[in-house]
Amino acid sequence: MSDTSQNPADMIARFGGSARAALATVANGTGYFAVTPQAPYDPNLTTAEQAEQLLAKAEARLLEIGSSKGELLFVAILLKDIAEVAAFNAVWDAWVTDVAPPARACFQAELANPDMKVEMIMIASCTSQK
Amino acid sequence: MSDTSQNPADMIARFGGSARAALATVANGTGYFAVTPQAPYDPNLTTAEQAEQLLAKAEARLLEIGSSKGELLFVAILLKDIAEVAAFNAVWDAWVTDVAPPARACFQAELANPDMKVEMIMIASCTSQK
Amino acid sequence: MSDTSQNPADMIARFGGSARAALATVANGTGYFAVTPQAPYDPNLTTAEQAEQLLAKAEARLLEIGSSKGELLFVAILLKDIAEVAAFNAVWDAWVTDVAPPARACFQAELANPDMKVEMIMIASCTSQK
Repeated sequence: MSDTSQNPADMIARFGGSARAALATVANGTGYFAVTPQAPYDPNLTTAEQAEQLLAKAEARLLEIGSSKGELLFVAILLKDIAEVAAFNAVWDAWVTDVAPPARACFQAELANPDMKVEMIMIASCTSQK
Repeated sequence: MSDTSQNPADMIARFGGSARAALATVANGTGYFAVTPQAPYDPNLTTAEQAEQLLAKAEARLLEIGSSKGELLFVAILLKDIAEVAAFNAVWDAWVTDVAPPARACFQAELANPDMKVEMIMIASCTSQK
Repeated sequence: MSDTSQNPADMIARFGGSARAALATVANGTGYFAVTPQAPYDPNLTTAEQAEQLLAKAEARLLEIGSSKGELLFVAILLKDIAEVAAFNAVWDAWVTDVAPPARACFQAELANPDMKVEMIMIASCTSQK
């Protein structure tokens, strides 16, 4: 704690979310968030179909935080079933076809909701936020 | 290597750790670290109890690196057993009740020590470090 | 899209890669990438041997992006078989013996190619990039 009138936590831009988590944070020109398919998660959708939902949400969130899909720096892709990676990649490739893509990693992980087949962690450059 | 008097590696603040890893690093106003429960890890503790230990350690480390829990940007939560997520979330919610929370992701992963039930990767804004 | 002559995406340095992903990105003095063993991945190599390949690739990539292994900030280490962690750590310890090491986390994850036994996500300070 300091006596300055500026609270350090105020230098972080926060977006949406709940008492548990922000939907995104931005500091020093860099944004951070995790993104999931459309809730409630539909187990009858394929991984690829859930990924399409997720990427549409990501695209809107990137714009909201002063970024865009062409300003993504890194994306970690968590698949419930890594055997779906080829089907997932087809959706991903279409999504980044019109931009320079970020660096990325992809691995298998059991996610917090058993009906969720894909989740991503995204780091982006946010030129519209300072 | 260059002839300049300033070693680029010196622009990174490092905290604690060993020859294998730093406990935390800070550069460009952003801090990075992983944090675990109290070692040696006690397999008789629940995930929630280990999480309480971990979050107490995290809070101290955040202060040490010129940050605080209200300046967390992103937290990745790795649970050995994702079925414990609800019990974990109760501990988490209590921990962030007095701050604006970070963005976060939570997934299941087998951790490096079989007695460890939770580990977190944290990225924070460090206003007291340059 | 804006009318300004400066495209925000141009403020990101990008390295190598494909239409699917960059090998690395750098923005605001921080670099991000994932790195794997030598492709095609050889399942007859041990985790430790694949890690040696990976760390040689990482060292070259760090130099390419204006960084170095002494400027790593955080490394997430994903092992296909966490039982290999001790053998992996011996390789890691040798690699960082001449530098101040980054913060790191290590966990088990099934990776995108079944022959790949280790993958890492690296965040580095890039003093030669602005």
